Amino acid sequence: MAAQVEAVVEMSNINGNGVAASCRERLCSALDGLWRSIVGFAGKLAKIAREDPRRVAHALKVGLALTLVSVLYYVTPLFQGFGVSTLWAVLTVVVVMEFTVGGTLIKGLNRAFATLVAGFIAVGAHKVADLCGDKGEPILLAVFVFLLASAATFSRFIPEIKARYDYGVTIFILTFSLVAVSSYRVEELIKLAHQRFSTIVVGVLTCLATTVFVFPVWAGEDLHKLAAGNLDKLAGFLEGMEFECFREDPTSDDLENKAFLQVYKSVLNSKATEDSLCNFAKWEPGHGKFGFRHPWGQYQKLGALCRQCASSMEALASYVVTLTKSQYPEANPVLSFKVRATCGEMSLYSAKTLRELSAAIRTMTVPSKASTHMSAAVKAAKCLRSELSEDAALLEVMHVPVIASLLSDLVLQIQKITESVDNLAKLAKFKNPEKTQKEVVINVGS
Amino acid sequence: MAAQVEAVVEMSNINGNGVAASCRERLCSALDGLWRSIVGFAGKLAKIAREDPRRVAHALKVGLALTLVSVLYYVTPLFQGFGVSTLWAVLTVVVVMEFTVGGTLIKGLNRAFATLVAGFIAVGAHKVADLCGDKGEPILLAVFVFLLASAATFSRFIPEIKARYDYGVTIFILTFSLVAVSSYRVEELIKLAHQRFSTIVVGVLTCLATTVFVFPVWAGEDLHKLAAGNLDKLAGFLEGMEFECFREDPTSDDLENKAFLQVYKSVLNSKATEDSLCNFAKWEPGHGKFGFRHPWGQYQKLGALCRQCASSMEALASYVVTLTKSQYPEANPVLSFKVRATCGEMSLYSAKTLRELSAAIRTMTVPSKASTHMSAAVKAAKCLRSELSEDAALLEVMHVPVIASLLSDLVLQIQKITESVDNLAKLAKFKNPEKTQKEVVINVGS
Repeated sequence: MAAQVEAVVEMSNINGNGVAASCRERLCSALDGLWRSIVGFAGKLAKIAREDPRRVAHALKVGLALTLVSVLYYVTPLFQGFGVSTLWAVLTVVVVMEFTVGGTLIKGLNRAFATLVAGFIAVGAHKVADLCGDKGEPILLAVFVFLLASAATFSRFIPEIKARYDYGVTIFILTFSLVAVSSYRVEELIKLAHQRFSTIVVGVLTCLATTVFVFPVWAGEDLHKLAAGNLDKLAGFLEGMEFECFREDPTSDDLENKAFLQVYKSVLNSKATEDSLCNFAKWEPGHGKFGFRHPWGQYQKLGALCRQCASSMEALASYVVTLTKSQYPEANPVLSFKVRATCGEMSLYSAKTLRELSAAIRTMTVPSKASTHMSAAVKAAKCLRSELSEDAALLEVMHVPVIASLLSDLVLQIQKITESVDNLAKLAKFKNPEKTQKEVVINVGS
Repeated sequence: MAAQVEAVVEMSNINGNGVAASCRERLCSALDGLWRSIVGFAGKLAKIAREDPRRVAHALKVGLALTLVSVLYYVTPLFQGFGVSTLWAVLTVVVVMEFTVGGTLIKGLNRAFATLVAGFIAVGAHKVADLCGDKGEPILLAVFVFLLASAATFSRFIPEIKARYDYGVTIFILTFSLVAVSSYRVEELIKLAHQRFSTIVVGVLTCLATTVFVFPVWAGEDLHKLAAGNLDKLAGFLEGMEFECFREDPTSDDLENKAFLQVYKSVLNSKATEDSLCNFAKWEPGHGKFGFRHPWGQYQKLGALCRQCASSMEALASYVVTLTKSQYPEANPVLSFKVRATCGEMSLYSAKTLRELSAAIRTMTVPSKASTHMSAAVKAAKCLRSELSEDAALLEVMHVPVIASLLSDLVLQIQKITESVDNLAKLAKFKNPEKTQKEVVINVGS
């Protein structure tokens, strides 16, 4: 009996150990998975920080500004001056702090002015409503809030206001509603409005001081670098073309995966960043190499031209890829060689021009050598045209086929679009057309 | 003496009349100018409203939601339930109301969840700080605010968080800072947090009720219409090409100003709108013809293909314009005629395909005829290729010159970029390079 009990106890011990062991295993593997995902996430964060260390500085700056402004709350004499309105300083800092100096400046100015204007109008509305007695006051206030909020919201659809004062209009509606509505219950309205406005100004000033004096990020500088970077990317494409396609022994094995065929693509989508940076840069005070009235608008014009150029590069790239895939034999090596050499020259000198221009922007030096390269490229283009025009047979037949081949490229792209819409129709369960098969057949015949 | 006085008085009267008359004139012209600018502004507003009447509805809806929520403040029993926190309902409505249902939903959910999470963490931080005594508490609170605000701000640089939860993170920082900072002075912290959260929920619910039940604007519907509209624009370009360039008597007088050469351009810049609409649409509940799990991601894929197509159209358009300007003689009318006819077919059937696809999306019907048109276009393209390959002489010389001509287009564009940078250098007063004239000359020679 005793032996049996012992055996049972031992068994359950073994089982217990087994369960514990499998639990430990599972726990270990779960911890391992957790650890791996933590490491992965940390790696991602480190990459974001490494890509642009100013991001870390910005995060610390927001923390600093908030801590500075919260001192108002902790130090009793300061707190008694502003009262509970101190919270508005904290709120302002959170909402106004932006990555660039220009962004913070625009938001801060918008906030301060909109609060001031809306506050005045709201106090006026309160005075008017006050004349209508206790019963009329809330009704009149509600009508005022409805009218002004509607009008202000509609004004946000005007493109000029949307671009520059969108945030200001939001704050206008906010302040007007808050002051007008609370005027019904608050006794010392003017004192409250005054307190709130001054805390907002304190908040805005804290933000500005932090963004301007601690590792400032200037939108203008970013815009300037973006312009130079875009020119470099365009140059990279042309250099790649020259090296891969127009050398004597072109290495056209797997052209499609070459980096240079992707490099211009980010230029195509640079408009939104460029526009917002330009909007911010216009508000920034002079700094470093940039004066207060630096011609920021020019960067937008240059950007538009670069995007057009990138768009032509896309057409050229897709044509070149199609061509290398189809591998037509070259039956006229002499002409091919001639044209190829000229193409190489055009690419090379154009790329050199772009590199010169980019360097000129980076160093803010007048681009002196660019015009030399440019005229070499233009000369090569002219030379090509005259060569082609000497070969009459070639000229005659060339232009229409160019359009034809561009068009047949388009046809392929539209085929892809058709497939995409078919896919959508399948996934979104589009209904089938209410036609008999007959009609479709007739239509094919027509 | 009396007569003299009379004369002086009369003189000054006349002068006075003269001054009054010129004043009246100036006043009249000023009033006239004012009136004209008012009329102009009203016309602009009317145009904005006419373009999309939902804008007027949206403005009135914001007014309505604000008025509804301010009733909380005017009705004494409701006010006593929420206290001064009622203001947070007003603030929430102003900030959360967006044009589309999806936009409002995302902002509202972000705001409610971020407030809840931040509130809990902040109360926890307050409990911890409370343990450190009167002197330690503000210091510890400040450290917490600094750390959390910095970490949260940095998280906004993670692309996934930026795209979806940017607003939520702002509200998280805001709520945490407000609650943590004010916990130092406020006695009934939990009650205050509870009041504030419930007013925010009331605000969000008011917004949602107004956007969903009063003239709802669905982001999904807009995205759907945008896709169909983009296809129509691409079709418009091809129809224009067919009519103006590939008919037997092309009317190529001033091709450059034709509308069809501009119509695809807005497709190129549709990415930002599309992305934000798609982001909103994913959050919208099922409505009308769209189920809850409608494949919104497909619209983005379709959009990317449309933009690529528009980009090829840009290349084709610029080539066609250059060609008609240069007016080369057509020395091989038979071939020209053949190729032109095939080009016309390709354009026509491609355009028909696109129109079919657009109609299919609009009516949510499976595109049945599109494949017929598409195969006609593909057939024409193949036919062209085989025709060209029969003419061996043509094929041989065609492909390299295509690339050459696309490249020489690029050269012209880069020339424009050079001019733009030169202009920038002049306006921004770039410094001159520190080189002697000699070096430049040597460089030209090399």
